[in-house]
Amino acid sequence: MFRKILIANRGEVALRIIRACKELGIRTVAIYSEADARSLYVKKADESYLIPGDPVWAYLDYVRIVDLAKSVGADAVHPGYGFLAENAEFARFCQKRGITFIGPKPEHIEMFGDKVKAKKMMKKLGIPTVPGVEEPLKDPTDALHYAKEIGFPIILKSAYGGGGRGMRVVKSEKELPQLFESGYREAETFFGKGDLFIEKYLENPKHIEVQILGDKYGNVVHLGERDCSIQRKHQKVLEVTPCPVLPKEMRNKMLGLSVRAMMQVGYESAGTLEFLVDIKKGEFYFIEMNTRLQVEHTITEMVSGVDIVEQMIRVAAGEALPFTQSDITFRGYAIEFRINAEDPKRNFAPAPGKITAYYSPGGPGVRMDAGVYKDFVIPPYYDSMIAKLSVWALTWDRVIARAKRAIDEFIIRGVPTNIPLHREIVRDEDFISGHFGIRFLEEKLPTYDFEIEDQKNPEDITLAISAAIASYYGL
Amino acid sequence: MFRKILIANRGEVALRIIRACKELGIRTVAIYSEADARSLYVKKADESYLIPGDPVWAYLDYVRIVDLAKSVGADAVHPGYGFLAENAEFARFCQKRGITFIGPKPEHIEMFGDKVKAKKMMKKLGIPTVPGVEEPLKDPTDALHYAKEIGFPIILKSAYGGGGRGMRVVKSEKELPQLFESGYREAETFFGKGDLFIEKYLENPKHIEVQILGDKYGNVVHLGERDCSIQRKHQKVLEVTPCPVLPKEMRNKMLGLSVRAMMQVGYESAGTLEFLVDIKKGEFYFIEMNTRLQVEHTITEMVSGVDIVEQMIRVAAGEALPFTQSDITFRGYAIEFRINAEDPKRNFAPAPGKITAYYSPGGPGVRMDAGVYKDFVIPPYYDSMIAKLSVWALTWDRVIARAKRAIDEFIIRGVPTNIPLHREIVRDEDFISGHFGIRFLEEKLPTYDFEIEDQKNPEDITLAISAAIASYYGL
Repeated sequence: MFRKILIANRGEVALRIIRACKELGIRTVAIYSEADARSLYVKKADESYLIPGDPVWAYLDYVRIVDLAKSVGADAVHPGYGFLAENAEFARFCQKRGITFIGPKPEHIEMFGDKVKAKKMMKKLGIPTVPGVEEPLKDPTDALHYAKEIGFPIILKSAYGGGGRGMRVVKSEKELPQLFESGYREAETFFGKGDLFIEKYLENPKHIEVQILGDKYGNVVHLGERDCSIQRKHQKVLEVTPCPVLPKEMRNKMLGLSVRAMMQVGYESAGTLEFLVDIKKGEFYFIEMNTRLQVEHTITEMVSGVDIVEQMIRVAAGEALPFTQSDITFRGYAIEFRINAEDPKRNFAPAPGKITAYYSPGGPGVRMDAGVYKDFVIPPYYDSMIAKLSVWALTWDRVIARAKRAIDEFIIRGVPTNIPLHREIVRDEDFISGHFGIRFLEEKLPTYDFEIEDQKNPEDITLAISAAIASYYGL
Repeated sequence: MFRKILIANRGEVALRIIRACKELGIRTVAIYSEADARSLYVKKADESYLIPGDPVWAYLDYVRIVDLAKSVGADAVHPGYGFLAENAEFARFCQKRGITFIGPKPEHIEMFGDKVKAKKMMKKLGIPTVPGVEEPLKDPTDALHYAKEIGFPIILKSAYGGGGRGMRVVKSEKELPQLFESGYREAETFFGKGDLFIEKYLENPKHIEVQILGDKYGNVVHLGERDCSIQRKHQKVLEVTPCPVLPKEMRNKMLGLSVRAMMQVGYESAGTLEFLVDIKKGEFYFIEMNTRLQVEHTITEMVSGVDIVEQMIRVAAGEALPFTQSDITFRGYAIEFRINAEDPKRNFAPAPGKITAYYSPGGPGVRMDAGVYKDFVIPPYYDSMIAKLSVWALTWDRVIARAKRAIDEFIIRGVPTNIPLHREIVRDEDFISGHFGIRFLEEKLPTYDFEIEDQKNPEDITLAISAAIASYYGL
């Protein structure tokens, strides 16, 4: 086992890794920018080193980070998520310098980093990808030919540009000729060339991902799936496990194919296969693979009982997975809320600043992963996520009830947060039904009232006032 | 289901019940003494009422409490633990006034409240009790007769007094005549009468208890056992579930007999059968039954996945238990730490006062039930327990590792706490072995050094200092 691990990250994930290391009896080394000097993880690590200069580059300057790891005698590096987590060059550089990179093999990071190649490989391994044609269409007749093969609705996309220019959703054969022409003309106007691709159109699919763990001896298990459909501008907002409406047969097929594919490539460490899923039609399509720990691993840990960070460390140190698939039991449901310092009333603009009151939820089925505390100043340079609230209960109904209770307990003052958004989501009948797709928030956001939400929660204000009174009287 | 529940308690258990009610959509009514006006539970309840006057009587004056419940339209009362929880008169008075008492039937509270009667009944129901003779012994010959029946070692106890006067532990036949005579003379000197009883002596048994849940329809299940052997002056300090060294057959027998007995008496709500257990000899003896929610229910919730407070409320409202014994799954191990505001360096004297820094543990497998927060002033009138830290992991080794990590994260400043004691216990190889009995702490306390323990934990001090710096710079 490693003696000392350097954590090439910051915030709550750095603290998450420190916790795993402490439980394994491994010394921890934190790095921090000047902006992060008062962060919790910096205090909780056994050793902490300032990386002066640019506050973001501090966590990206891998030559310097590996030099530091060598000089302090660390034998491994955990990259967390973001920053260097999916940088194959970094993983290779660690290897070269004799430091273990806690994560997948560099060739897998690289392979799955190229989304086009990743899709092709997964297709070869028997995993469905979104049906489409990689060559530009010749004309409407050509388009119709493929559209019939794929099945309506289809989407036409410009071969040369994005931003929706030239993009046309075609629901039936009738509409095709006209929409092809208008899409072609628009693409031509904007990008100089009108070339269009064709792909199957999924109206409001679910985003479901499969958590994988592998070791150096060819053992691969899944830890179930997560439904990550609740997104805002392609950013996950809250996640659920298991998906409450995924039919058993479909789940087994997704999980089984994922494990088989990862066995075939010899995947090591934690990884996640992301799919778009049309539950009504019973179809799922691989979109990409994340070769790292995910933010939302917490809910999988609650339901499966497996400590994913611990297993990443053990596997990297050469241990075999201590369980087979049939040893892993899944119990109940869990939901993760990403708590971001951002203003729901100002289109979720990041809102760094000082936390003047902080009270986090507790009690049954509540897990807190927070990087902050009262009087902490959130720096403006990083992702706005400051904490994760994960709740668990035995049934879907109960986890919804518990989620409402727990998110209502959360008090953060001084900076606005997205807690009011979470309050709206867990009270939304369409969320509670389980039948929500990736366009859920896009449709719902205009209907949520965050002014009212603030006033709806008088208990928070009572507590905030009471804290103010207590402090006034010097209590 | 109830519309409104009054909580006839305070502190962390009041908050625990409020959380369950919120999850069930039931309005909550808190009562509080003037000393508790700034308590968290008072702020978190939907309605809170001051009971002026004596700060303890506020939670015992049941005529007033039931009057209040009636006047605010509460349809049920939850007593928590302590105060009125095992007061049969209170339960009857609630019934009489048309308020549901959330707990067992009054006759069961009464019956199990009389420990002598309770033992006799349990014996009738086929549950072993500590072997002994209820009549005073005539002479050493009579004593020898029973001693041989019971088996050495035995204990002689005065029939009229306590405090160890006249008490003699007899390990063999040889010692008996002399110890009988000296015990008799001592009892005679102190209590006027020398009469002695005889009972089997258990040298360092475990204290193991079985968690029971029953409904109004004769359904009774167990939720496993808890090992509560770590005690100081008969007060539990930390608890473990399941007992890591209890043989499977013995466990099944204890659990099976407990469920059968509770079915026979028609027990409703949550209850706990306490046993003294000699694992080597494979013997267990019922000592008493607690007809209420226990402090340590949290760890049973973590391992069984069952929300005990929720089920107490549902059962009281007339619902049947939603599961049978075979539906309940047990996963992993859990440990609860009772965090008390008391000074380990001053023989654990209660130490009320103001909390000047508060940071509670988080991350995987950690549950917090706390009644306090930074700047809260702990009143001097009540039990010194201010928080409960419960940790869970898949194996005994991992729960020990996690317990160490989590208790080390806990920061409370301003008042001394028993956290240093917990740190010693979870690092003690005799604790880790699982083979600890009720005399564990009695033997171990003189060997623990709480001065050193304070210095061993520099990271706390670092954080406390950093918080002080942050506050100095107005950050």
